[in-house]
Amino acid sequence: MKKHNFSAGPAILPAGVLEEAAQAVRDFNGTGLSILEISHRSAAFTAVMEEAEALVRELLSLSDDYGVIWLSGGASTQFFMAPMNLLNDDKMAAYADTGSWSAKAIKEAKNFGAVEVVASSKAQNYSFIPKGYETPSSAQYLHLTSNNTIFGTQYHNWPETNVPIVADMSSDMFSRPIDVERFGLIYAGAQKNLGPAGVTLVIVRKDLLGRVSRKLPSMLDYRIHIENGSTYNTPPVFPIYVSMLTMRWVKANGGLKGMARHNESKAKILYDEIDANPMFAGVAAKEDRSLMNATFVMAPGKEDLTQAFLAATKEAGCVDVKGHRSVGGFRASIYNAMTPESIGVLVAVMQEFAQKQG
Amino acid sequence: MKKHNFSAGPAILPAGVLEEAAQAVRDFNGTGLSILEISHRSAAFTAVMEEAEALVRELLSLSDDYGVIWLSGGASTQFFMAPMNLLNDDKMAAYADTGSWSAKAIKEAKNFGAVEVVASSKAQNYSFIPKGYETPSSAQYLHLTSNNTIFGTQYHNWPETNVPIVADMSSDMFSRPIDVERFGLIYAGAQKNLGPAGVTLVIVRKDLLGRVSRKLPSMLDYRIHIENGSTYNTPPVFPIYVSMLTMRWVKANGGLKGMARHNESKAKILYDEIDANPMFAGVAAKEDRSLMNATFVMAPGKEDLTQAFLAATKEAGCVDVKGHRSVGGFRASIYNAMTPESIGVLVAVMQEFAQKQG
Repeated sequence: MKKHNFSAGPAILPAGVLEEAAQAVRDFNGTGLSILEISHRSAAFTAVMEEAEALVRELLSLSDDYGVIWLSGGASTQFFMAPMNLLNDDKMAAYADTGSWSAKAIKEAKNFGAVEVVASSKAQNYSFIPKGYETPSSAQYLHLTSNNTIFGTQYHNWPETNVPIVADMSSDMFSRPIDVERFGLIYAGAQKNLGPAGVTLVIVRKDLLGRVSRKLPSMLDYRIHIENGSTYNTPPVFPIYVSMLTMRWVKANGGLKGMARHNESKAKILYDEIDANPMFAGVAAKEDRSLMNATFVMAPGKEDLTQAFLAATKEAGCVDVKGHRSVGGFRASIYNAMTPESIGVLVAVMQEFAQKQG
Repeated sequence: MKKHNFSAGPAILPAGVLEEAAQAVRDFNGTGLSILEISHRSAAFTAVMEEAEALVRELLSLSDDYGVIWLSGGASTQFFMAPMNLLNDDKMAAYADTGSWSAKAIKEAKNFGAVEVVASSKAQNYSFIPKGYETPSSAQYLHLTSNNTIFGTQYHNWPETNVPIVADMSSDMFSRPIDVERFGLIYAGAQKNLGPAGVTLVIVRKDLLGRVSRKLPSMLDYRIHIENGSTYNTPPVFPIYVSMLTMRWVKANGGLKGMARHNESKAKILYDEIDANPMFAGVAAKEDRSLMNATFVMAPGKEDLTQAFLAATKEAGCVDVKGHRSVGGFRASIYNAMTPESIGVLVAVMQEFAQKQG
């Protein structure tokens, strides 16, 4: 039976990317060797690194003011690496608290300077994106999480601020155009829209670097990775390769504008059903709903049917529709590679469930 | 033409492992999903993590005194992470300097405490392993690099010392039995004997942790990764999976004793030819020769033939026989997965070259 992959991450990738990746594990571009066993300094892989950076720059219309780095350790490593590189002990950074990942970023930043939480939706279980708050101009940066995988909220407008924004875009990178000029640093673990687990894309405004007084281990200094084209040491070759293939697919499918159109129309199919179907209720504030992760629960009074609905999704081949324990209910992650057909399967299950149980 | 992969790393992996890895990228264990797009908390991947740890413990006869962790960032990350976790600012660690990687480890450790270089072969371009030195008992640990990829030397006996040894075993992990009780910490980037680039295996004696007074970012604290079974955040799923497949292969081929026998006999074929063939000369002290990376040059007076010999190896399908720039000449990396047949091809090229040019 065909599977419909609603996993929050590691998550669905385009079928053609998976096919080409599998072929490269057997024989990479006719080299007679697997992509898993070639030198990261070989001509074949150097071409991959160059194309990967060129695609990032092209998709984002990125100027030379920004460095593009491929690291590992996920967003969780950037939670401390960003303040370690950008925040001096005697300075302050502002943080917006919109979910579990923001909270972890805040916790890790406190080791490196003062942290001011300028907005939080924690008291309402992170069900909306705070707006209209001020960021003190003394802040070195404003940190935010652009999309909250667990709670199903997403920024649709960036906050007004004069300080550089540092953004964790792990779960919506390359899902829509980004006005990069607003950002000092963008980081994204690959395993949602970009590639498999094991690589993190970092985009950083170079003039912000070198201002902190602490000593940085070489591997934690963004400047060293920029100077060495992300090959100061052996990079995660295969995850970078698959990310490059995915960016080729994004480009071939209309670039970021194409992704945004596609994601808006896909999400609408699902949210329309959530709103129309009397068995279900959305979790996030409507204006802040994520186009990547739709969170919903059984309608009030019908909570007992949660397990039965999950069983029905499984029977239809839908994978990982169960909600995160901190929200409950259901979560359908519908990243770039999710097809309208698979969303249609989930919507059909919702409709059949309402007919049977309603 | 069949390729014979002598790359120093990322490096040759067993053909069966590559085939199974390619299949898992298409469809992982009949789940209908790629290994690249499944949740790291899924039952299917949890089973991989459990088998991977069990295989590490079985291959090394590892006791519960040691934690097994899968990280990312390569050995270069362990260069600072080991002292960050084990060395207080007011304490001292001893380091043996046997090559470029040792030297980098020494440089990074100096940010975290006092470093005493107790032995070095640097003045002889790292062509041997220093022996018979004393390690002060005040040292928190003695750090060494078990195999020096660039210079082609390898420890065949561990130094006498009463302090725990911390070892970078990136390039000879699982190539021979290890008396783990001698070690406080062992780390190994996977991309030589273990798997593709993108994961690092760390084995650490748990009672050595928690003794430093500095604050550690969560992602840099070995204890957090032990407590969370290496899934504090999303781990590098595919590199761990391929490492698990490779360990299955090691186990099926006689375990570490089997690997040692196999590696000794393979290396002998090549070193015998280097010693017998008047066109070539070995680089490393004979007693310290690496069973993983054989370094050799044209015999004195024949240096002009270096490029011609490299061309001959390429014509025969031998990949990456060129030596590292800091040694020159040639380097044949012959890790666990290297076959005697491929070494035979290289030896035949050496013999033909001597006949033609001799």
